[in-house]
Amino acid sequence: MRQYQLSEIAQKIDVPFEGKDCTITGIHTLKEATETQLSFLSDKKHLCDLANTKAVAVLIDARYIDNLPSTTLPLITSEPYLKLAYASKLFSHDMSIERGTPSLGVGCHIDKSVNFGKNVTIGKNTMIMAGCYIGDNVVVGSDTLLHPNVTLYHGTQMGSRCIIHSGTVIGCDGYGFAHTKMGEHIKIYQNGNVIVEDDVELGGNCSVDRAVFGSTYIRRGAKLDNLVHIAHNCDIGEHSLLAGQVGMAGSSILGRNVVMGGQSALAGHMTVEPFTTIAGKSGLTKRVPGGKTYAGFPAIEHKSWLRMQAILARMLKKQS
Amino acid sequence: MRQYQLSEIAQKIDVPFEGKDCTITGIHTLKEATETQLSFLSDKKHLCDLANTKAVAVLIDARYIDNLPSTTLPLITSEPYLKLAYASKLFSHDMSIERGTPSLGVGCHIDKSVNFGKNVTIGKNTMIMAGCYIGDNVVVGSDTLLHPNVTLYHGTQMGSRCIIHSGTVIGCDGYGFAHTKMGEHIKIYQNGNVIVEDDVELGGNCSVDRAVFGSTYIRRGAKLDNLVHIAHNCDIGEHSLLAGQVGMAGSSILGRNVVMGGQSALAGHMTVEPFTTIAGKSGLTKRVPGGKTYAGFPAIEHKSWLRMQAILARMLKKQS
Amino acid sequence: MRQYQLSEIAQKIDVPFEGKDCTITGIHTLKEATETQLSFLSDKKHLCDLANTKAVAVLIDARYIDNLPSTTLPLITSEPYLKLAYASKLFSHDMSIERGTPSLGVGCHIDKSVNFGKNVTIGKNTMIMAGCYIGDNVVVGSDTLLHPNVTLYHGTQMGSRCIIHSGTVIGCDGYGFAHTKMGEHIKIYQNGNVIVEDDVELGGNCSVDRAVFGSTYIRRGAKLDNLVHIAHNCDIGEHSLLAGQVGMAGSSILGRNVVMGGQSALAGHMTVEPFTTIAGKSGLTKRVPGGKTYAGFPAIEHKSWLRMQAILARMLKKQS
Repeated sequence: MRQYQLSEIAQKIDVPFEGKDCTITGIHTLKEATETQLSFLSDKKHLCDLANTKAVAVLIDARYIDNLPSTTLPLITSEPYLKLAYASKLFSHDMSIERGTPSLGVGCHIDKSVNFGKNVTIGKNTMIMAGCYIGDNVVVGSDTLLHPNVTLYHGTQMGSRCIIHSGTVIGCDGYGFAHTKMGEHIKIYQNGNVIVEDDVELGGNCSVDRAVFGSTYIRRGAKLDNLVHIAHNCDIGEHSLLAGQVGMAGSSILGRNVVMGGQSALAGHMTVEPFTTIAGKSGLTKRVPGGKTYAGFPAIEHKSWLRMQAILARMLKKQS
Repeated sequence: MRQYQLSEIAQKIDVPFEGKDCTITGIHTLKEATETQLSFLSDKKHLCDLANTKAVAVLIDARYIDNLPSTTLPLITSEPYLKLAYASKLFSHDMSIERGTPSLGVGCHIDKSVNFGKNVTIGKNTMIMAGCYIGDNVVVGSDTLLHPNVTLYHGTQMGSRCIIHSGTVIGCDGYGFAHTKMGEHIKIYQNGNVIVEDDVELGGNCSVDRAVFGSTYIRRGAKLDNLVHIAHNCDIGEHSLLAGQVGMAGSSILGRNVVMGGQSALAGHMTVEPFTTIAGKSGLTKRVPGGKTYAGFPAIEHKSWLRMQAILARMLKKQS
Repeated sequence: MRQYQLSEIAQKIDVPFEGKDCTITGIHTLKEATETQLSFLSDKKHLCDLANTKAVAVLIDARYIDNLPSTTLPLITSEPYLKLAYASKLFSHDMSIERGTPSLGVGCHIDKSVNFGKNVTIGKNTMIMAGCYIGDNVVVGSDTLLHPNVTLYHGTQMGSRCIIHSGTVIGCDGYGFAHTKMGEHIKIYQNGNVIVEDDVELGGNCSVDRAVFGSTYIRRGAKLDNLVHIAHNCDIGEHSLLAGQVGMAGSSILGRNVVMGGQSALAGHMTVEPFTTIAGKSGLTKRVPGGKTYAGFPAIEHKSWLRMQAILARMLKKQS
């Protein structure tokens, strides 16, 4: 794990720093940061999290520093989100082509063309077929099957009895950027990972983004069809079913046994209650009661949507 | 081809069996099962197929056994679809990392990094570029071009003069599960295959699912753009055109020369008449006359959809 | 670069030719063709370009030959677009499994499993991870990172400081076909390429089509999320943001800093003004003023779309 002195980070990202120096081991949100992590206040709406943050230092606009807890140091900047982006790079994984020798459980079948990064652990009876790439620090459980040409980025954790179909990519970077005044986009390095629990199946050519901080989750027993897009920090509930070409925007959470029809989508930072069904081609954009079916875009209750279609059909008939 | 005694299957999936034992060579639907295959009645709506089934045995709820033909044995269970799922595993292909030596026609160009399963046959003058994986029992015709990093799963049959672009996956598992009372999903092993006929072109990063039973078809001369999703048991008609990001749900059939615009979709178990056009972003959900253009979701005739847009625009104007 | 005598092309595509022979080095549109290129008039709407074309010869229907400039030779045919398709094959790249030794800048890290075509040039400090394929005549700049299992087709030009995620395919063929009277589709060989400028990031499993003539562009600083589809001859403006599963139809142009939400799409042959935002799931089908947000399908101004949703909600309430 990388670490820096806070003064060193301040210097590298060009933010003034004075006060007692300390060691920084990573970056996280105000809510989740630990006593050795740096955090940031990029939006007034997170002020409520500032009072209780454990972060040892926070990138913050001068106007808000009175809200800082006494144990937290300010790194004062008028562009905290942009400075976060620069700081995130300091903690990014060193991509490398160095190979490692995986620790393999008994009964594994690993194709000789599979490429392993360093420090990989594979459970018992797992099969990894031709052309797969398994990045640094990946852990895969037992009795799992990776079909040919699957890519697991560094840090991916996968459970047992999973089936991952060809072309699927797990752990690619989430889509996160800070923006300069000139309209350029500065990458926020995605230093989290993906956790795929037991009994998960992913179809062909899915893309599952790693978390910016923490983890993206695909929970136990979830089944994803082909060409599904899971953005960073999503949490796909146990036994959820996501049909072909479903798209999940960032930081959205599905309860257990949610069903999403083909080409449906979920807006970001949403929570979907357990046993909710989202019909094919729909897009859910707000929090709704669970256990029901929603359709349309923006999605409404399916029975209302059916009535709406009937109303529109009558309008069309009347005016023809 | 695997086979089991019926009594053995019954025991493995925990269903009582009595009567004359017999050899089972596979599983299929009531309509398609042969005299040595097991079938299942999972839904009352298929009762009509029960009377004429050739299946030697059927997984069936006790209440329907009076409808069985005299030559067909019952395997009585209150959860026939779940038992089907367990039985399907018995007939699944043994995934393996064992390599085979393909039978190559004259004039083939096969990159040395291509990995072949067992019992592969390639026609004349076919080129297979770097990083492709060709599974067990695959047959590819002549003058076909597989661009780099294509995956053909076991059992895929491909014709001549096809062009398959990079990242495309043919023969991954269809999305089929039975559900337990606890909300878990039990895989129905997809023991069919994919048949790609002559003169087909598939774009980059498409996913074409193998059939659960029988075959998924991409018929002669069909052209698919990038990132297209074809679910299990679809039949893509001759000379059909599917633009980028089209999604086909399971068991749908396109007649010849159907055109589907970008991001359009088709509901499952549909038949689309020849020479039908489905506009971009539309979703067709019911059977409609052929030779016309449909738009919207749910899709209606394109000229009606245009009128609908005009009506809505007027409403918006009036109320502003 | 391939070249033919015009008489030779005429013979191969079965079009009568008489007159002074000349050397043809390629094919392009009426507007873009140079003095050694062949062009075509496939649609009356391009007649305006005919008068000023520099093309040395044009595939043309007899009825339009009076509009030809005096320096341009006619190849008379009743099916100029179909003949173009046949002629395009003559200029197509010779796909090959022949390997080349790339020219590598200092500090490159190239995984030993990477496969290179001929005549590849890679800049300084670029990393190419396992399973990537780099086609003939590809140029990649400095400090670029290709994650595992990326495919760059022949002729791709990529800048510096790019990040390309796994499974992404750049330079696969655009979706272009001429149609015979029998309803068959004849491939128009895509003899252009893709140019990816500096500081571009592409997510996992994207597909970017090469141009039919000229180049498809991803301009400086553009960031694409996962599973994005870019059709041939698109031009993605500087610092544009395309979220997950966006689809761009052919020949569309984005100005700088255009934002497209997840699963949104753009019709073909469109120009989008700078600083335009297209909301998630929307589809823009006509030219609109820049600097605003558009939503719905067909997309209208976002504030109008919100009013439309309110009107529909009221209708639903009244009739329930």
